[in-house]
Amino acid sequence: VPPDAILLFTDYGLQGPYVGQLHHALMGAGCPVIDLMHDAPRCDPRAAAYLLAALVQTLPGGGLFLAVVDPGVGGARQGVVLRCGGAWLVGPDNGLLAVAARRLGGAEAWRIDWRPEGLSNSFHGRDLFAPVGVRVARGDGVPGPSLDPASLVGWGWGDELAEVIYCDHFGNAYTGLRGGGLADGARLRVGEHRLSHARTFEQAAPGAAFWYRNSCGLVEIAVNQGSARKSLGLTPGTRVHPDP
Amino acid sequence: VPPDAILLFTDYGLQGPYVGQLHHALMGAGCPVIDLMHDAPRCDPRAAAYLLAALVQTLPGGGLFLAVVDPGVGGARQGVVLRCGGAWLVGPDNGLLAVAARRLGGAEAWRIDWRPEGLSNSFHGRDLFAPVGVRVARGDGVPGPSLDPASLVGWGWGDELAEVIYCDHFGNAYTGLRGGGLADGARLRVGEHRLSHARTFEQAAPGAAFWYRNSCGLVEIAVNQGSARKSLGLTPGTRVHPDP
Amino acid sequence: VPPDAILLFTDYGLQGPYVGQLHHALMGAGCPVIDLMHDAPRCDPRAAAYLLAALVQTLPGGGLFLAVVDPGVGGARQGVVLRCGGAWLVGPDNGLLAVAARRLGGAEAWRIDWRPEGLSNSFHGRDLFAPVGVRVARGDGVPGPSLDPASLVGWGWGDELAEVIYCDHFGNAYTGLRGGGLADGARLRVGEHRLSHARTFEQAAPGAAFWYRNSCGLVEIAVNQGSARKSLGLTPGTRVHPDP
Repeated sequence: VPPDAILLFTDYGLQGPYVGQLHHALMGAGCPVIDLMHDAPRCDPRAAAYLLAALVQTLPGGGLFLAVVDPGVGGARQGVVLRCGGAWLVGPDNGLLAVAARRLGGAEAWRIDWRPEGLSNSFHGRDLFAPVGVRVARGDGVPGPSLDPASLVGWGWGDELAEVIYCDHFGNAYTGLRGGGLADGARLRVGEHRLSHARTFEQAAPGAAFWYRNSCGLVEIAVNQGSARKSLGLTPGTRVHPDP
Repeated sequence: VPPDAILLFTDYGLQGPYVGQLHHALMGAGCPVIDLMHDAPRCDPRAAAYLLAALVQTLPGGGLFLAVVDPGVGGARQGVVLRCGGAWLVGPDNGLLAVAARRLGGAEAWRIDWRPEGLSNSFHGRDLFAPVGVRVARGDGVPGPSLDPASLVGWGWGDELAEVIYCDHFGNAYTGLRGGGLADGARLRVGEHRLSHARTFEQAAPGAAFWYRNSCGLVEIAVNQGSARKSLGLTPGTRVHPDP
Repeated sequence: VPPDAILLFTDYGLQGPYVGQLHHALMGAGCPVIDLMHDAPRCDPRAAAYLLAALVQTLPGGGLFLAVVDPGVGGARQGVVLRCGGAWLVGPDNGLLAVAARRLGGAEAWRIDWRPEGLSNSFHGRDLFAPVGVRVARGDGVPGPSLDPASLVGWGWGDELAEVIYCDHFGNAYTGLRGGGLADGARLRVGEHRLSHARTFEQAAPGAAFWYRNSCGLVEIAVNQGSARKSLGLTPGTRVHPDP
């Protein structure tokens, strides 16, 4: 079954000609192409892996996630295609796809052996992963030999990541903890702060920090009418501690 | 008649996974989905209402405007669907849609009673308004009882708003005044400044502030080769005074 | 042969309602519309022309490039349509399209004489160039008399531009020099710096500045794990000097 959409998840940013060229390279896919996000944790495949996994689980169905957070582009890292149930994952073998694949379960994996003419050293999203995505989307098969998923980089990473993995433009801080794993009565420690749960922003006093389960299923730290990032000095990598 | 396009108007910003998930939720609509703007006045449905009204009037035809500036998300506010001539408006009942609906005239209104499984507390754009938009776009009817439009929040708001409602990235400041209401000879007072009209930027001296009728029909304050926002210290909410 | 896609290249930015209205105006084109980039060199048709030319050559095939960097909008400058092989170029006659057309070769040119009802003074992208793009995309011909391409503004500009023309959000600085014109052993002088070539970022020491051939074929200045813009104080217009 070919994917019903291609969803782009990169750290390219929306500035510059990168995302546009990616769309151009995907023109022949025959399915919609959606910009899921282009400000994924920059050059940080590990944090990005936990964010991607949450989003993949939030967007069920037969999507193909074309994911590129790829500091090793042009070097020795491999490219891979994964199939997990109805979903496809295409990107570098640097851990970015492994957390999502393990959670979805039943993964099949292939290494990308094919190389295009004129492969650039810095833009494999356009030159390598997009054409492979088109090929998969058109049902033309996978371009390389099968792999044992357990051999993927990142397959052994923990099920959750007790860190801030992303701060959005409102100043809310996503963690790599899943909301389902924390009871309503649990506190979350961040530095010297101990945060209680709130169901909605309105439940917290203006200016008060709290944690809640965000719309992609992760534990998120927020401040009602403020910025948790600024108020608590959060940044990607800040450790958090569930306090049941 | 189903809409010929869905136009998104939100304050979600382009950062993060919000707009992408909105597009994914709209995949089944069967018509193009256009990002009209995602930096609408943040958490300010009143300013946003005057901007949306101007844009709706600038984009005639049978569009469905999916508008979300929704500080009360997860609380008690209702969701509504409005039909005004060929246009549809879908969003929260917090005034955001009322100015546009009143201007277009002949509005029919319905309250959104339907609730999806797994409604999040913070992302009704994806979970509630997008599926309702898909339903309307597919011609499957409206998901709730009809309403008297005059009972909508914001129905009694003034026809114009004599304030800066939006500053664009060039530093130009949109007001909630309509260009048609101000004669070429009129001045616009802003703080201690009295601005004259110019038809084009080139008509004003470099560095000089002026007002003009912008491309969506609003009175806009600009500085030739400069930023009106910085030069005049403008910010959303700054009062302006027509001086006929 | 109608174009297979419309590619947008503007300095409108992604903020505000500009790009969205452009997409709305292009709805009838009958082919995909791709946001190639919207942060082209601002109000600088000359720098933008060298960037556009590189991108056009990177994206072969039958695209229609709708390009708007147009500080003279509303004034006396003309609009033009160019055809060069399978590619189309639509935009203002201010030099923006000339470098690309000359490089592609075999250009045919037409002046845009048609004017829409309700032409705004500030948004010809939406009001003039988009409808012309739709007309060309639908195979309905060009809206004006043919021109001698050699009479276009910018036709006489140099083949390359030895300046920084664009800084991306990573801090990498594109120049208007083509990568094919500089040997691997060549240095690039920028102010007091003399930069060597590297094939990939990993080849340079962390913090070291170098030049490389970027993914759209231009000589680009970068710093491994850093920002060339900040480290070397680069800005659009900074002169560079090949040192063979």
